[in-house]
Amino acid sequence: MKTVGYAAHSSEAHMVPYHFERRALRGNDVAIEILYSGVCHSDLHTVNGDWGPQPYPLVPGHEIVGVVQSIGSDVKNYKVGDRVAVGCMVDSCQECDQCHAGEEQFCRNGMTPTYGAPDRISGETTQGGYSKHIVVREEFVLSIPEGMDLSKSAPILCAGITTYSPLRNWGVKEGSRVGVIGLGGLGHMAVKLAVAMGAEVTAISRTDKKAAEAKEIGAKGLLASSDESAMAAAASSFDLIIDTIPTKHNVDQYTPLLAVNGSLVIVGQVGEMDSFSSFPLLFGRRSVAGSLIGGIAETQEVLNFCAEKNVYPECEIIKVDQINDAFERMAKGDLAHRIVIDMASLEA
Amino acid sequence: MKTVGYAAHSSEAHMVPYHFERRALRGNDVAIEILYSGVCHSDLHTVNGDWGPQPYPLVPGHEIVGVVQSIGSDVKNYKVGDRVAVGCMVDSCQECDQCHAGEEQFCRNGMTPTYGAPDRISGETTQGGYSKHIVVREEFVLSIPEGMDLSKSAPILCAGITTYSPLRNWGVKEGSRVGVIGLGGLGHMAVKLAVAMGAEVTAISRTDKKAAEAKEIGAKGLLASSDESAMAAAASSFDLIIDTIPTKHNVDQYTPLLAVNGSLVIVGQVGEMDSFSSFPLLFGRRSVAGSLIGGIAETQEVLNFCAEKNVYPECEIIKVDQINDAFERMAKGDLAHRIVIDMASLEA
Repeated sequence: MKTVGYAAHSSEAHMVPYHFERRALRGNDVAIEILYSGVCHSDLHTVNGDWGPQPYPLVPGHEIVGVVQSIGSDVKNYKVGDRVAVGCMVDSCQECDQCHAGEEQFCRNGMTPTYGAPDRISGETTQGGYSKHIVVREEFVLSIPEGMDLSKSAPILCAGITTYSPLRNWGVKEGSRVGVIGLGGLGHMAVKLAVAMGAEVTAISRTDKKAAEAKEIGAKGLLASSDESAMAAAASSFDLIIDTIPTKHNVDQYTPLLAVNGSLVIVGQVGEMDSFSSFPLLFGRRSVAGSLIGGIAETQEVLNFCAEKNVYPECEIIKVDQINDAFERMAKGDLAHRIVIDMASLEA
Repeated sequence: MKTVGYAAHSSEAHMVPYHFERRALRGNDVAIEILYSGVCHSDLHTVNGDWGPQPYPLVPGHEIVGVVQSIGSDVKNYKVGDRVAVGCMVDSCQECDQCHAGEEQFCRNGMTPTYGAPDRISGETTQGGYSKHIVVREEFVLSIPEGMDLSKSAPILCAGITTYSPLRNWGVKEGSRVGVIGLGGLGHMAVKLAVAMGAEVTAISRTDKKAAEAKEIGAKGLLASSDESAMAAAASSFDLIIDTIPTKHNVDQYTPLLAVNGSLVIVGQVGEMDSFSSFPLLFGRRSVAGSLIGGIAETQEVLNFCAEKNVYPECEIIKVDQINDAFERMAKGDLAHRIVIDMASLEA
């Protein structure tokens, strides 16, 4: 199938229109016309080569919503016209204990990311959502619940599941005390989701500049990490902290904020962290953990949860030719919302 | 009450005989004649001033077993002649949520360590177990189960509870896959306790020098961290790792050994740790945590568990005048056993 997208042709990350082929449908494949594609900070990291060399030309995008255009002969759960979504993975071995446990993100044989990875059968490079169409095996296609606003749903597929999964895994419920470090794409979703679970949520940011924004999205307040006395007063007060800082940093400022048995979960920075002190961990049985997106069943769960609770990311809709500008703005700082490409703006 | 012990008079840590007073019994106090006192690496750290300035002269020792010599008028649970023990704490506020939860080690108002801290009532410095007698409020006195060998029980009060508590807290049971880094005082107890809980235990040490020792105490084998291919083959294979390394180190070598959802629990090093990578944490929802001794009820539990399962530390009994030599040996390296002072060797 011929399609068109926006691709980076080198680590310069300048995105240009790119005509390419999507594979012919296999029996269990679903062909999707993409309507909206979220822009994730990791798209920028990847095309920049920050996480290693990439197979250019590369079409990023792993927050995808659209409608089913055609289906393979063996597809059971989708039909033409269904509203569907695709997230960060498009395949996994489906045979290991992790896949069986619904944790395809930890597939023993390595899951297949939505873009920049070899397809498990043909070996050709997977290409992402900054394009008119995508072909994905049905096990990795999600269903968009009835009534959900498609234009605001795409970021749930990465920013949503990435923060929903640790909130669920660490048992957040009515009355849980949750801190969220950073108020960017991930952070603002963590706040909204935790609030929807009934938690008492505090945004944690370097200054109090975003205090009003934090309250608008449901946080009970903002704790400024540069305010030493406020930080001291907040010691031992969080059951869970979701740490969305996307760069190398020190956790020592934050671990004393955890209650006894509390956990700080890193979801932003992938790689080197600063040296740290074990002292706050020992004196409170505290943990520093990491979490990576979520499994397919859990991704469906977060979509359903958002539909039910009317939780949406703050979205700024752009045209596809604004993508390079959007990358620049994202690189400069934490946008307290998610950028979403309206794919109708891309001429076929 | 007049007594005698061995005290350090400065951070030189050279211990000499020291005559001093134990307080007159308060209503809820138990006076104990000390029979055995374990020697912990933290005794050495403390008298050396590694953890901050100390109120010298200082009598260390927080692994104490003996018999009740006299009791205060309000004591309900002990009588003269009872076999009893004292661990790392001799008091706490008894009023906060942590004390009520049986986690006196995390008392909101600060627990009182067995030595080197101001008594909550008189303010005089607490003095530890390298002495003939100790006076402790009954809430912090443990009972030695019938039939237990007193000469080998003292190290359970620190090395035992410090490793038992995380094994229990992280749910170790029949078939759990447990790794223990380091085979010193803490490490060898962690191996024995985890084996007694039915776990499949692997000792992790720099070289395979201690492989025979590890098997003797019940480990199924030893993983040499300097053997890169063995380490790679052991990836994702432990549910829990108890990290007893008592110095600053890097956890990156060990976190990939954890299974999905696995935890590495630091119980040795208190303070600065090397920089680390969040990568193995994210790609497996793994945690790095800390744990500190255990509460009083749990300390009684480990004593009962050791009595029932016939688990004892490997003990080397010394005379009190050998303590300076013992400190030197301990400072030089990991002894795969615990040194215990026979307090009968100290003339009154």
